[in-house]
Amino acid sequence: MKTIPTQADIESAHERIRQHIIRTPVMRSESIDTTAGCRIFFKCENFQQIGAFKARGAMNAALSLSPEDLKKGLATHSSGNHAQALARAAKLLGVPAYIVMPSNAPEIKKRGVRSFGGQIFECEPTLQARETTLAEVIKKTGATEIHPFNNYDVIAGQATAAKELIEDAAQPFDIIMAPVGGGGLLSGTLLAVKYFSPNTAVIGGEPEEADDAYRSLKSGKIEPSQAKSVADGLLTSLGDKTFPIIRDQVKEIITVSDREIIAAMRLIWEKMKIIIEPSCSVPLAAVLKHKEKFSGKTVGIILSGGNVDLERACKLFAEFS
Amino acid sequence: MKTIPTQADIESAHERIRQHIIRTPVMRSESIDTTAGCRIFFKCENFQQIGAFKARGAMNAALSLSPEDLKKGLATHSSGNHAQALARAAKLLGVPAYIVMPSNAPEIKKRGVRSFGGQIFECEPTLQARETTLAEVIKKTGATEIHPFNNYDVIAGQATAAKELIEDAAQPFDIIMAPVGGGGLLSGTLLAVKYFSPNTAVIGGEPEEADDAYRSLKSGKIEPSQAKSVADGLLTSLGDKTFPIIRDQVKEIITVSDREIIAAMRLIWEKMKIIIEPSCSVPLAAVLKHKEKFSGKTVGIILSGGNVDLERACKLFAEFS
Repeated sequence: MKTIPTQADIESAHERIRQHIIRTPVMRSESIDTTAGCRIFFKCENFQQIGAFKARGAMNAALSLSPEDLKKGLATHSSGNHAQALARAAKLLGVPAYIVMPSNAPEIKKRGVRSFGGQIFECEPTLQARETTLAEVIKKTGATEIHPFNNYDVIAGQATAAKELIEDAAQPFDIIMAPVGGGGLLSGTLLAVKYFSPNTAVIGGEPEEADDAYRSLKSGKIEPSQAKSVADGLLTSLGDKTFPIIRDQVKEIITVSDREIIAAMRLIWEKMKIIIEPSCSVPLAAVLKHKEKFSGKTVGIILSGGNVDLERACKLFAEFS
Repeated sequence: MKTIPTQADIESAHERIRQHIIRTPVMRSESIDTTAGCRIFFKCENFQQIGAFKARGAMNAALSLSPEDLKKGLATHSSGNHAQALARAAKLLGVPAYIVMPSNAPEIKKRGVRSFGGQIFECEPTLQARETTLAEVIKKTGATEIHPFNNYDVIAGQATAAKELIEDAAQPFDIIMAPVGGGGLLSGTLLAVKYFSPNTAVIGGEPEEADDAYRSLKSGKIEPSQAKSVADGLLTSLGDKTFPIIRDQVKEIITVSDREIIAAMRLIWEKMKIIIEPSCSVPLAAVLKHKEKFSGKTVGIILSGGNVDLERACKLFAEFS
């Protein structure tokens, strides 16, 4: 796809990936509603295949390739959920996946990629080494690069999470929220809301310690990320495909501290009895920080994923208690 | 109710409590199915009101009282989920709840009871002190004692969890499993299966360190519990109403070690992204310990609850890793 996804593009994406993804449940919590002072509908992408919404975009991008290109395989550099999502898509479609990962990527992430038959190419942990290695792999194999977020087919895939939320809640939202890292989920959410719930405002949530999207909106150009927050899924900067969508349509980006992120994560674990990763609690942290903005409203929140190592989660809870 | 609940009793119980409880989802995990070598349907009572199936039995017992008795209030001695379930039922019905709790009950449990407006009577942490205090409270208030498990209305209420599982999975189960403590959930499950899925076998799961039900089946009489396991919801002995139902109908009780309980708990947290308490993972631990018995079968498991303090859970994971 060469232009910003249209309503028809998102509808086709949804049809295309339907049989390969989970239509995740929408959950509520009386207790969190009372604490927050508004009515929140949580779209539980922590229950998605591979434990995160990334399964949607990767699958849509793979299925959007021509049969000839698809056969040559899928490639990316990623140390996160996208690597696993792409390896899974390739496995289901019977084609190779070539994943460039920094040598310091956690063993658990490598195991995840290998469990889907993905081939890992290790490189030095710098962006330059990752890009050079990926270019070499592509040159050798003819595989197609599927970028984790700066790709319109990926964005159209991520948009299907908000589309399902809008359909399944079956009532008008005042606000829908998503976290922002590279901007794939937030820009997809913005497009879904524009087409399927045009009277709803979209608000992004971002860590203070990696507030590049917030700063990019202020400066009008893509700012680099400081990449320091506990929300390890939100450390990348925006891309030239995600930034304009966010700039033109988002109502606001609210930033929250690491302490607020972990407190909101804990609230969801304790009250909803579900496991989410730190990146995922950022929108709820934003609601709790600015209750006056959300008071009495109907709010949708995309819970982006649940891939957190339990030892790390326990350490974070202890550190921020 | 003075006799073992009939099919009609369980159907009425379900109608009676329907608007006050959550029809909890049935979840699956490809990854756990692969590990276990069978197809498992998890009935997620960790998402129930107050975080456990106990909301069902307490509500059914309360709604089964005459208006005159109900008005005088509900009473019990309990330091666990039943105390909260009874306080919630009383609050919803606008009557008082009198809860006798040992002085060493965790503050979080007391807060839970108070959050529903329950009145707490503290006593020495012995069974005798609990019973004496409860008798005094009842004499003074005229409230009705609702026992946590040895009560046919409570059993009929707990039976509705398995009834929903059978209805919602919409396919025949070879086996349905529940953990066993006092036996309220297991005897309710046995009755639901007898009436609504008579070709299904029921297997109980019990901690080795509190295997009184296993020993009671062997000896033919109610044996006391050693009360030592990490599965703190399963430390009570059977009652004279739950024991005969279990003795006559259960196929088998499988016991598992504390280590196996925590390993199964961890598997559910990691693969299903949901939070369950140690008592709740006992049936899955039993499946994983005796895979040959379950190989290729369709198995239903009642996940009984999710009320575990995060600090305690983290400590258990560290201790048994």
